[in-house]
Amino acid sequence: MSISTKPPPEARAAQADAAAQRLKGQPVSAIDTPALVIDLDAMDRNLHRMAEFAKKHDLRWRPHAKLHKSAQLARLQVQAGAIGVCVQKTSEAEALAAGGVRDIFISNEVIAPMKLARVATLARNLGSVGGRLAVAVDSMVGALGLAEAMAAADGSAGRLTIDVFVEIDVGQGRCGVAPGAAALELVQEIERHRTLVFAGLQAYHGNAQHLRSVHERRDAIAQAVDAAVRTRQAIEAQGIPVGLVTGAGTGTFALEAASGVYGELQPGSFLFMDADYAKNDPDPAQPQFDQALFVKTQVISVAADHAVCDAGHKSHAIDSGLPVVHPLPGDPALVFENGGDEHGILRAAARGGPLPTLGDTLWLIPGHCDPTVNLHDRMVGVRGGLAHGKIERVIRVDARGAVT
Amino acid sequence: MSISTKPPPEARAAQADAAAQRLKGQPVSAIDTPALVIDLDAMDRNLHRMAEFAKKHDLRWRPHAKLHKSAQLARLQVQAGAIGVCVQKTSEAEALAAGGVRDIFISNEVIAPMKLARVATLARNLGSVGGRLAVAVDSMVGALGLAEAMAAADGSAGRLTIDVFVEIDVGQGRCGVAPGAAALELVQEIERHRTLVFAGLQAYHGNAQHLRSVHERRDAIAQAVDAAVRTRQAIEAQGIPVGLVTGAGTGTFALEAASGVYGELQPGSFLFMDADYAKNDPDPAQPQFDQALFVKTQVISVAADHAVCDAGHKSHAIDSGLPVVHPLPGDPALVFENGGDEHGILRAAARGGPLPTLGDTLWLIPGHCDPTVNLHDRMVGVRGGLAHGKIERVIRVDARGAVT
Repeated sequence: MSISTKPPPEARAAQADAAAQRLKGQPVSAIDTPALVIDLDAMDRNLHRMAEFAKKHDLRWRPHAKLHKSAQLARLQVQAGAIGVCVQKTSEAEALAAGGVRDIFISNEVIAPMKLARVATLARNLGSVGGRLAVAVDSMVGALGLAEAMAAADGSAGRLTIDVFVEIDVGQGRCGVAPGAAALELVQEIERHRTLVFAGLQAYHGNAQHLRSVHERRDAIAQAVDAAVRTRQAIEAQGIPVGLVTGAGTGTFALEAASGVYGELQPGSFLFMDADYAKNDPDPAQPQFDQALFVKTQVISVAADHAVCDAGHKSHAIDSGLPVVHPLPGDPALVFENGGDEHGILRAAARGGPLPTLGDTLWLIPGHCDPTVNLHDRMVGVRGGLAHGKIERVIRVDARGAVT
Repeated sequence: MSISTKPPPEARAAQADAAAQRLKGQPVSAIDTPALVIDLDAMDRNLHRMAEFAKKHDLRWRPHAKLHKSAQLARLQVQAGAIGVCVQKTSEAEALAAGGVRDIFISNEVIAPMKLARVATLARNLGSVGGRLAVAVDSMVGALGLAEAMAAADGSAGRLTIDVFVEIDVGQGRCGVAPGAAALELVQEIERHRTLVFAGLQAYHGNAQHLRSVHERRDAIAQAVDAAVRTRQAIEAQGIPVGLVTGAGTGTFALEAASGVYGELQPGSFLFMDADYAKNDPDPAQPQFDQALFVKTQVISVAADHAVCDAGHKSHAIDSGLPVVHPLPGDPALVFENGGDEHGILRAAARGGPLPTLGDTLWLIPGHCDPTVNLHDRMVGVRGGLAHGKIERVIRVDARGAVT
């Protein structure tokens, strides 16, 4: 590394990428720590199970790419049968489109005129290569702003359109217009604009995903389904067809699938899973998924009653709890305690039990997969298991930090 | 944006950087959300107060760059009188060295041979431009590994050395060898290696920084000072001089300064501050710092009893609690509730109080500054206040994601 010059950031990014790509074919031990590692065998099983489920239920499947933020994985999901992907942010959509993803739904509200102009540009660019952009709307201000931006991007051509899903609040209490009359009023406004194509209802119940019992999840989704049906009826009573009801996540998608109301499923986390989803009681109606995402970490300090590893809050998100240590055969059973931004503190699971040795490798299951991925520039894909596998691919997190 | 080609990541990084640099001279309203914004006036005041304190107490001052991860800000600190910076990770040291920082202390343990080789290379490169690298050690394995890597990097030249600080556990219960005899033994091992220069003791008490009362912090640091003194005496009794005791953070540095034992202070957070440090009872012996780091966010959805902004866990760290809404004059008083990865839920601070309007800008004070900065590629520096100021600088987070 030269230090007398100051390489521009793009040169450093390219260097880091080249170094990462050189890992291909090497054993797991070549991965420096901390690092995000995908068990590709587990990921492929998860992908296959989800694809099979959607096919069996004859439903469209649009996985949420806010999980992986990777164009490579989005394309893999489309190859497996997904219709396209969801994202939450305009900049995520741009990053994935730049990586060759053609059908993208921004399942979130966009309000700022400077963002709406980008949405319109992206709709035009995707359209020019046979792709499609959709966006969620939950307010008159949002619908009017979008129509204005689309008209500006269209110019005199008069052909540019964007799919608009009206988001209804089906019980989460976050975004979304109220089901029923308020949603109808918004649909009617959308119908007045030539550039806006009313495509259906966004009806996602985020909180329901993490309710622990199947019973609670069933009750929550029953309410969501009811809200969607009521809204659809109100809209269709005015002669406006509701093309699609879309929603669902990894915790509940079998329930939305069984409803007969949802035509498209949006689960994302199933691909990787995490310690939080592992706490849900399994629903026999939906496929079970394997843990595929891990943080590889190393023990860098050992004391009498604890060890310290090199992974902290800057390597894994803790919004859904601390990571869980995943012992490989022969590894000691350990509990992970908060050690701050750059460290994890490890204690024996049983009092007086064995601690790891300085330099040992440990594997962590993150508490929450989505924001953990967002901390990393790349994910290292391993084939053949964490203990003895080989590095098959290094996958860029293209939309890492894409929050705007 | 072209989508029919796939621009390589370095091209996209360069594009994003160019777009950010175009913000210079524009009003605050030009900053898309969510974004990390520095109140440069507040930051400069904080920098000046810290520099004055160190000067007045005739102490070396080595701010921790794990906060800002920015070469530009590290250089600014050195211009203000800092001797250099601390970092926690080898890759942070590399990123800051690439940005022109010359004197760096990795205040953490490095164990992996592949990392130690990089440490040795960096020590050589910094040395070749008149700079200096130091690293902390708390184990024989770590000392021997470092000596081996240094010997390998030195080749036949026989001139390469690195400063080594023995980290002692002064009460945090994380890294660090036990004070006293165990530390002495490690120092004696270090003394046997020509490439390793025993430079002193790393004696940082992380947990003490966030104890709320001055009394608790004083007790904790009194123990840390006692441990450092005991260890120094044990080492010096063997005829080995202890060049420096270094440590201290933003919560306690006046206590370490007053001890007469610490010769160098390592606070980092003082530059930006956060909602967690704001909860500490102020110590009249140390300068007070102003909040300088904010997340600019926009209201993207409004319901009857709440509003939703576009900043969630992917825009601010929540390990030390949720962000606090910072109302500008005329803004409604709001409470921030957890809205997940991409959203924040806002409720009126008083029941029935006013909510913001769709599209409104809000300012958040992050719960914890360090891991919040690590989520962003750049920080937008504003001069003249958040309400009516202008963008003066866009500061790259050079070591963002540098966790190895």
